[in-house]
Amino acid sequence: MESIKVFSPGSITNLSCGYDILGVCLENRGDEIKVSKTNQKSITIKSVNGFNLTKDIYKNVSGIAAQALMKKIDIDHGFEIEINKGIKPGSGIGSSAASSAGTVFAINQLLGSPFSLIDLVKFSMEGEKFVSGSFHADNVAPIIFGGITLVRTIRELDVVSLPIPKDLEMIVIRPNIEIKTADSRKVVKKKVKIEKMTQQSANLGSFVSSLYSEDYDLMSRSVIDQVVEPDRAFLIPEFDNIQRISKNSGSIAVGISGSGPSIFSLSNNRITSNKVLESISQHYSSMDIEHDVFISKVNSGGIKIIETK
Amino acid sequence: MESIKVFSPGSITNLSCGYDILGVCLENRGDEIKVSKTNQKSITIKSVNGFNLTKDIYKNVSGIAAQALMKKIDIDHGFEIEINKGIKPGSGIGSSAASSAGTVFAINQLLGSPFSLIDLVKFSMEGEKFVSGSFHADNVAPIIFGGITLVRTIRELDVVSLPIPKDLEMIVIRPNIEIKTADSRKVVKKKVKIEKMTQQSANLGSFVSSLYSEDYDLMSRSVIDQVVEPDRAFLIPEFDNIQRISKNSGSIAVGISGSGPSIFSLSNNRITSNKVLESISQHYSSMDIEHDVFISKVNSGGIKIIETK
Repeated sequence: MESIKVFSPGSITNLSCGYDILGVCLENRGDEIKVSKTNQKSITIKSVNGFNLTKDIYKNVSGIAAQALMKKIDIDHGFEIEINKGIKPGSGIGSSAASSAGTVFAINQLLGSPFSLIDLVKFSMEGEKFVSGSFHADNVAPIIFGGITLVRTIRELDVVSLPIPKDLEMIVIRPNIEIKTADSRKVVKKKVKIEKMTQQSANLGSFVSSLYSEDYDLMSRSVIDQVVEPDRAFLIPEFDNIQRISKNSGSIAVGISGSGPSIFSLSNNRITSNKVLESISQHYSSMDIEHDVFISKVNSGGIKIIETK
Repeated sequence: MESIKVFSPGSITNLSCGYDILGVCLENRGDEIKVSKTNQKSITIKSVNGFNLTKDIYKNVSGIAAQALMKKIDIDHGFEIEINKGIKPGSGIGSSAASSAGTVFAINQLLGSPFSLIDLVKFSMEGEKFVSGSFHADNVAPIIFGGITLVRTIRELDVVSLPIPKDLEMIVIRPNIEIKTADSRKVVKKKVKIEKMTQQSANLGSFVSSLYSEDYDLMSRSVIDQVVEPDRAFLIPEFDNIQRISKNSGSIAVGISGSGPSIFSLSNNRITSNKVLESISQHYSSMDIEHDVFISKVNSGGIKIIETK
C-alpha cells in the first residue's frame, strides 16, 4: 500500500456529565485525510483544503501527531499528508482530533499496523496538547475506538468502550462563530466544592448505567453539568433558549459539545430528532444566527478507510 | 400483623471511587430490630441491646427515623422498638443506617407498606443527618434496595440499582477502635482541583461499567480514591500495610469502608478471599490490634424479615 485516504469523523465530548473524559463518535461531518509514502525520511503536509490552516508540521496538529508517531518507529521513508477539512476549527466537535487521529490512523495502516489503538490515541494527544494547552483524549479516543468512550486516565492511558443504546441519536447545532478550546478552558474554575464533585461523579456513574440499561429517563436525569457548563454557557449565542426549545421538542438532554459553540441534543427516535432539529434551527434563523445543524447516530466504527492504492 | 422482627444488615460505602454516593449491602453483620404496635400514639424505644446506646427517641437514630415516618401518616396508634445491635457504632459499616433503615422498614410492614422504598430511604436519612451532620443516603439505600446502589442525587432522591457481578465478594476487617462519622468527615477537604474531580468521576464511571461487564481488571483499576482516602488513611491503624498485604494476597481492590475504621477488600473467588482474610487478620494479630474480620457476598435482598406475629 502506497497511499490511503480515510474519513475521520467529528465527535462530541463532555456530554455534560463527563468533562474531559467522555466522548461520542459522530457519523457525519469529518475530515478526509490522504497519506502517501515518500522517499524522504520526513513528514510533509502537501495541502490543507479549507479554513486557511498552516502546512507547518510543527504547528498543524496532523504534523505534530505524525511526528510523535515517527519518533516511536525506525523507518527509512516518510509521508506526505493531504488534508481536506470537513470540520471547522473551533466548532466544538473535535476538528483538531479528526485531523490528528485520522493522520496517525492512516500512517499506521501504511506501516502495516505496528501500533495499537492506544498508541494512536497517545500520538493524537500531542496534537490536542498543542491546540488546547493540555493533554486530553476525550475527542481522539471515540474516533479511534469508535462508539462511546470513557477515558479513565491519561497517565497510563486507559480507555473504556461503553455500550451504544441502539436508538440513541444526536442533534448537533453549530452557530457560525469560533471558540478556541484554549479560551474556553480558561473560564473553567480551577477548584470545585466536594459536593459538586460528588454530584458530577454521580451523574457520570448514572449515565454509564443508562447506556447499559438503555434507560433514557435515567440518561435524561444524568446528562447534567453543574460545574463547567454554567460558566461556559455565556460564550454561546442563545444557549439557554436552544436548550429550552430542544427540551420542549422532546430531546432527552441538551448540552455544550466539547468546548462549544456546538450544542448537542440527545434523542431516541428520528421523529423527535427532526422536530428538535427544525425548532432549534428555526430559532437561530429567526435571530439571524448563521448555523449548521445535523442529526447523527453514534458511529461505532470510528475512522473509515475510503481508498487505498 | 402486631409485631415484626427484621435483620437489617451492614453496608460498605464509598468503595473508594464513590464518596457519599456508592454503597453495597452486606450479607452478614447487622442489627435485629423488633417493632410492635402499641395503643399509644407515640414512638418508644423499649430496649437497646449492646453498645450502651440511648433510648431517647430524639437522640437514637431509630427513634429519629421512626418519627420522620410518623409525620407523613395519620394513624391512631404507635410503635415500640427493640434494638439488638449487631454492628458496633462508628465501625464504618453502616451501624446507624442499619438501625434507622431497619426500623422504618419494619414499621412500614406493620402499616401494610404505604410507603415506597424511596420514602423509607428519606426517613432513614434523618437519622444519618443526626449522627453525621449531613444528609446522605449511601448507607441506607443499599440496605433498603439491596445490592449495589448509586445515589444520583439526594435532592429529588434518585437511587440507581447497579448489577451485582456474580462472583464478587468482600473481605471486611474492623480494627477495634471507634471513628465517629462526623469526625471522619472533618478531615475531608472542602474543595478539590478540577483535575481530581475528573479523575474521581472517571473512576466511578469505569467502576459502574465494570459491574455490568464483570471486568475485574477494570474494577481493580477503578476502585481508587485520590481525594478523600489519602486524608483519612491516618485515622486507621496500619491502613497502608493492610492494603499492601491484601493486594499481595490477590485482592482486586482495597479501601476504607465508609468513614472507617473498617477496611474492605474485593475478591472474585473464595480461595482468594480466605487468603486475604487470613493474611490481614494475621497482620493485625501480630501488631496486637484487636479486630473483627469476615467475608460477605453482596446481599441482593437487603433487609430480611425474620419473624412476624
